[in-house]
Order: sequence, then structure tokens, then C-alpha cells
Amino acid sequence: MARINDHYLKLGAGYLFPEISQRVRLFEEQHSDAKIIRMGIGDVVLPLGQSVRDAMHRAVDELGTAEGFRGYGPEQGYAFLREAIAEHEFRACGVEISPDEIFVSDGSKCDSANIQEIFAVQARVAVPDPVYPVYVDSNVMAGRSGPRDDDGRYQGILYLPCTEANGFLPQPPGEAVDLVYLCSPNNPTGSVATHDMLAAWVAYARNCGAIILFDAAYEAYITQEDLPHSIFEIPGAREVAIEFRSFSKKAGFTGLRCAYLVVPKELEGIDAQGNAVSIHSLWSRRHSTKFNGASYPVQAGAASIYSEQGRAEVQASIDYYLANAKIIREGLSSLGLRVFGGVNAPYVWATTPDGVGSWDFFDRLLEQAHVVGTPGAGFGAQGEGYLRLSAFAQRDQVEEAIVRMRERMRL
Amino acid sequence: MARINDHYLKLGAGYLFPEISQRVRLFEEQHSDAKIIRMGIGDVVLPLGQSVRDAMHRAVDELGTAEGFRGYGPEQGYAFLREAIAEHEFRACGVEISPDEIFVSDGSKCDSANIQEIFAVQARVAVPDPVYPVYVDSNVMAGRSGPRDDDGRYQGILYLPCTEANGFLPQPPGEAVDLVYLCSPNNPTGSVATHDMLAAWVAYARNCGAIILFDAAYEAYITQEDLPHSIFEIPGAREVAIEFRSFSKKAGFTGLRCAYLVVPKELEGIDAQGNAVSIHSLWSRRHSTKFNGASYPVQAGAASIYSEQGRAEVQASIDYYLANAKIIREGLSSLGLRVFGGVNAPYVWATTPDGVGSWDFFDRLLEQAHVVGTPGAGFGAQGEGYLRLSAFAQRDQVEEAIVRMRERMRL
Repeated sequence: MARINDHYLKLGAGYLFPEISQRVRLFEEQHSDAKIIRMGIGDVVLPLGQSVRDAMHRAVDELGTAEGFRGYGPEQGYAFLREAIAEHEFRACGVEISPDEIFVSDGSKCDSANIQEIFAVQARVAVPDPVYPVYVDSNVMAGRSGPRDDDGRYQGILYLPCTEANGFLPQPPGEAVDLVYLCSPNNPTGSVATHDMLAAWVAYARNCGAIILFDAAYEAYITQEDLPHSIFEIPGAREVAIEFRSFSKKAGFTGLRCAYLVVPKELEGIDAQGNAVSIHSLWSRRHSTKFNGASYPVQAGAASIYSEQGRAEVQASIDYYLANAKIIREGLSSLGLRVFGGVNAPYVWATTPDGVGSWDFFDRLLEQAHVVGTPGAGFGAQGEGYLRLSAFAQRDQVEEAIVRMRERMRL
Repeated sequence: MARINDHYLKLGAGYLFPEISQRVRLFEEQHSDAKIIRMGIGDVVLPLGQSVRDAMHRAVDELGTAEGFRGYGPEQGYAFLREAIAEHEFRACGVEISPDEIFVSDGSKCDSANIQEIFAVQARVAVPDPVYPVYVDSNVMAGRSGPRDDDGRYQGILYLPCTEANGFLPQPPGEAVDLVYLCSPNNPTGSVATHDMLAAWVAYARNCGAIILFDAAYEAYITQEDLPHSIFEIPGAREVAIEFRSFSKKAGFTGLRCAYLVVPKELEGIDAQGNAVSIHSLWSRRHSTKFNGASYPVQAGAASIYSEQGRAEVQASIDYYLANAKIIREGLSSLGLRVFGGVNAPYVWATTPDGVGSWDFFDRLLEQAHVVGTPGAGFGAQGEGYLRLSAFAQRDQVEEAIVRMRERMRL
């Protein structure tokens, strides 16, 4: 029989979110009358903006005409979208990114799972702990780890603890790695790296030859003016970093699917002979060989968020979710939990009460308040003792969740 | 510096189709007045059907309402689409496929590139020659080959020659492999495997424990009644095969992006200890970890092709392209070229005249007739001496291409 990829067998049970869905489904089957409030998966809930819908309708109509029909688009994304991104996401912040350094895709989950393919199996990987599970799982699948320990950590991967002591943001380690994943604003903790912190990471990467895989999927939620939105705001980052961006959380595209990767042309790795190799050309080969472009009407919708109306709609929904985050923060805080994040990020990271385990607290929250959170331990060993609540919910649901927690739970 | 994946350096220059685009772009720059006819990339040209557009408009409108908004969908695809596929693509042909054996994706290019990930790097791979380049390139990138020979073949991969003598369809080899890619109706040669041929492959796979990766992206173009549309029409195939299907060529979705993979639950591989492992569960883990579902409006559009009106629209466009294929066949034949395919497939495979190399013939066709084909050699060593012409073009363009070849070229 065909030999399978044994590295898959090292993986823990299920991918975190399907596991949560499974538990919720089970609970629902047993409690069909429970009105469940979902603040687990970070999934937007507000209706899609008018600009995006108008642009998508126009694109669909266009495809219905002989002159307007388009088949395969450029694998890297349409120029109209890449140019709009370069202009509005980067030039507007004083960062020069060329449109051909932007690779449009169908989602940051895919991008952050696929990026490791262009690096050696021997590459040493560092990840924050807690962390978005895709970074780790994709590397385990590719064989960059040993087996899984009892605490859910994989041998061979360097975990960078993010604790209350360091503000839930990792510092550069004392050893060299090849690849390091950073996420700011952070999923799951909601913390944001300052300019100085990112500068320390860029200096580290330049010093030891590491490549920073910088996930900025939540940058639109930054409210404080002095915080960096892109790692490319840091001088010298173009030689050491790749950045992930997404329309999912910024513009409600979780069901539409559109994201992009920024790969600067200066970025290089080395081959087995020690020759420098352009990472841009490697990724370009990967992207054009294994991907066929994002859906055209979706790209048209994505570009529409940069119109005046589009920008206003996007900002209104971000403001809405951030106001939710404030309610969650204040609510949990008034219940005696310690809370973090939620100011420059759509996630609130809260301690569980009295050292209750985070899966236990997840279950209690579901059973007593009928509220779905995400257990911190699902993001890594250092997430034990925490729960992530997502601000991506309807306002009345957020308010109701806090009321239920106050009334039905002993916290 | 970070170590790259050295296997990428084994790859030939560019992926085939970007290479063709590059040559065409160069020619256009030098001949801005040339009216180029594109029959190279197999890309649909007819406007998107009314049913699909209506369904997509409805879905976009739905996303604009509080009640109708949907964020992340199930990674495997919406039940409404998977059920429609099971019913109309399989049950209607007497094949029982459960909806949860169907994994909806954003394209067959991705599926056929990604499927190898769940198998061991040591797995021995067989491919037809000529072949869709993605099968080979994705395995080379993963390290399942040695270096590339001068004829473009990679050491370690078993090539199954498809020649005029065997009707351009490979027979099972005399040795065991782990994975074998088959494509019927075939891209690039346009040939179709009979029931007996597929039965021989299923017997081979059952006998030596191989898994058949069956690409049926063009099944909708089969016109002869006795030819199989799915490998699952062959008894015993559920234990040895995975099937790729796509909405791209069937319903004009190349720019919309929707496809699916069928992974039967009976299918197993073995791990290093010799234990049987479910391929369905491995792919399920891969799919849910690295992919976030296809775009919702696109899935809604895909499901609409199974309505009465949708079916009629799909059939009308297939008939149109097949009529093109007939014109190409007859035209090239009248010019003295030998032609194959184009009866149950949208591709015509033609000999180049007088032993001209296929890239040379590609260039002559472009320069003299301003027609873009695809050089057979781009699909593999055995494609040398052939050219693929795609029937995915406007009727007047197809007719004009034949006229130009007759008038401007000495064939």
C-alpha cells in the first residue's frame, strides 16, 4: 500500500476550531433549546458592506458579457488590486511596496500554511506560545518537528513563551533560527508589538540570518497611533521579512476569501551550497505552480474597500467590533478576571478563574452561560489558564454573554 | 541565512503557462498590430451562464443582510453543494459517493498539487508522459525526484510513455509504484480511457497497493456513451482511487475558482510501521488545517449548474467548444497534420510538420499565423513533435486560425 506522510501522525487530535465546533455541536444536540452565543472562532458577523457587494455584482455581470468575460486571472492577483493594496495599505503609511511584491491569495490560512514549503525541511522554526495553530501544524506536517510532548509541544520547534511578564509578546531568543513566526496584533492574546520590539526582531533576524514571517491579519484594529501596522515600517525589514495580510477581518471577507502576502525582492535564503537564492522567485514559482488566482469577483470586491465609501464602511465595522471588545474587557474585568488585549485587536485574552484549566473553563462557559470561547491551551502550553473571547459578534449577544456570565456562573 | 527548499532548484525554468504568456507578451510588444488568437492555455471564453450569475447575485445580496450573512463556511464545502455533486455527478451515473467523501476546493490545480503532501516523501510516483505539469512539479518540489535530465525528465519519477502506438494512454507498468496520476479525458492529448483500460489500472493498483490519482476535470466533454466519466464506475476503485473534478471547464469557472476532490472512505495507505491509515482522514486533516473553504457566492454559483436551466446552459457551452474542436480537427487534418483527441475532449493534439520541434512550431505559429498553441514538449519528453490546440476560443477565432494557418504557413 502507498506509504503515507508519517508526520501527520504526530499531530494532536483535530485542528483546534473543528474540535471546538464538534464540542458545540454535541452540546447543541443535548440542549436544543439553548441559545448559544458564539465568541470562539474569530469570525465576522456584520453584513457585507455595500461597496463590496456593488463591486461583486458588477464583476458578476461583467462575466456575463462577451466583452467582459475573464477566465484565469494572473496567479499573483489582478494588477488593479495589487496596485490598490500598494497604494492604500503601504504607501499611505510611508512604506514602499511594489505591486509585484504582493501575491494575492484566497486566504491567510493558506498563505501561512504554505509559506514553509519553500524552506528546507531542516530549517529551524520558532513560534510564539500561545500561537495560531496553523503555523505549527503546517511545519509538523512537513517534517520540521519531532514527536509531540504531553503538553502539546513538538520536539525540535523552538517555543517563545508569551506570558503576562513579557506582555504576551516574545523577545528574540538567544539562539539562531531559520524561520520565526510573529503575529501582531496578536492572535490569540490581543497584544501589539511596538516599533522598538519589532526593531529588536529585525536586528535579530539580520544578525542571525533568520526570516520573520509576520502575520498582520489584524492590523486594521490598531487604534493607538504610535504602533506599527507593518513590519516594513522598520528600517532593514525588507531583507528579513515576509508579511501576511488579509481582507477577512478587515472587511468581512471570511466567507469570500481574499488575502495577500508581501515578499520583498531583497529577501534571500541560501541553498545547500551556500548560494543566495531569491525568496521572491521561489514563492513566485510556488504560487504559480500550485495556485490559480483568487476568484475575480472577490478581488473586485476587495479592491472596492479602498474607495471613499468602502473605507468608511470598513472603519464603521472595525469600530463596532472594537466597541464590542471594550464591553468584553470591562465585563470580564468586573467579574474579577484579569483581561488583556481588546484595545488594538478584536480579541480579549482573559485569565480563567482560580486556576481552572482552559478546556474546563471552555466547557463551563458553554454549559452554564451557553457562550463559546476558545480555550487558551488550544493555542499552546502557555495558553493554559487563559480563554480567548472574540469581539466578532452582534452587540446584543456580547452584552448578553456578559450578563449570563455574571448571573449564571460563579467566577 | 535561512535554508531554502533545494528541490525547487531542480525545476525547469518557469511553469509552462507563464512561460508561454511571457513569449506571447514579448511578441505583442514587437508586433502591436498583430491580432493574436489564443488557443494555448485551456481557458474558457464564453460568458458565464445566467443561472450561475443569478445564484451569485443572490448569494452576494444574502451576505448583505443581518440574517443571511455567512462568514467562514465548512472547510470541506457547503452541504448544499456536496449533496448536489453526489446526486448529479455521481448517483445519476450509478455511482454512490457520500457527500462527506467530497472536498470542495478553489481549484483542481491546487488539489492536484496538494494531494501529494499526505504521502511519504519516499513514495514512488508514476506519471504519463506527456502530462499536466503540475503533477510532476509538485512532486519535485516535495523532494520525490532526483535532478532533471536534459530531456526534462526527473530522475526517480516513473514516466509512462503515451504515444500514437498506445493511443496516447498509458498502460500499467511492470513494476510497483505508490502513486500514479491518470487524466481522462486526457490533457494534453485529448484521448479518453475506456472502461477496460481503467479496469486494468484498478486491478494493477489493487495488486501492487498503488493509489490512482484520477483527474477527471474534462469528463463533461465525453460524447461517446460507452466511456467512463468517473473511475468509481469501475468495481473496486473505491479502495484504490481519488478523483479530481472541477467546475472550471465544465461551467466556465476558471476565473471563479471551484473544484472538488473525491476521497472514498475505504481508501487506505500504510505508515512506517505498516499500519493501515485512512486516506480520507489524512486529507481531511490537511484540508481543514491549510484551507478555509471556497468562496460562498462561488459555491452557490456552482450548485446552480444542477438546476434544469443550469444544466442546459452548461451543455450548450460544452457543445459549442466541442464544435470548435471539430473545426480544429478537420482544419489541421486538411493541412496535412495528423490529429488526435477533440472528440471527447476540448483539446486537439496534432503532429508538428516534418519533424519540427514543438517549441519551434509554437514560435512559427505565433510569428506567421499569430496563433498561440501549446508546445507538446512543454508537457513532457514524449510531447516533442506535437502541438496542443485548445477548443476554448470564440468560433470566429477558431475559423480564422485555420484560415491563417492555411494561408500564411507552409505546412
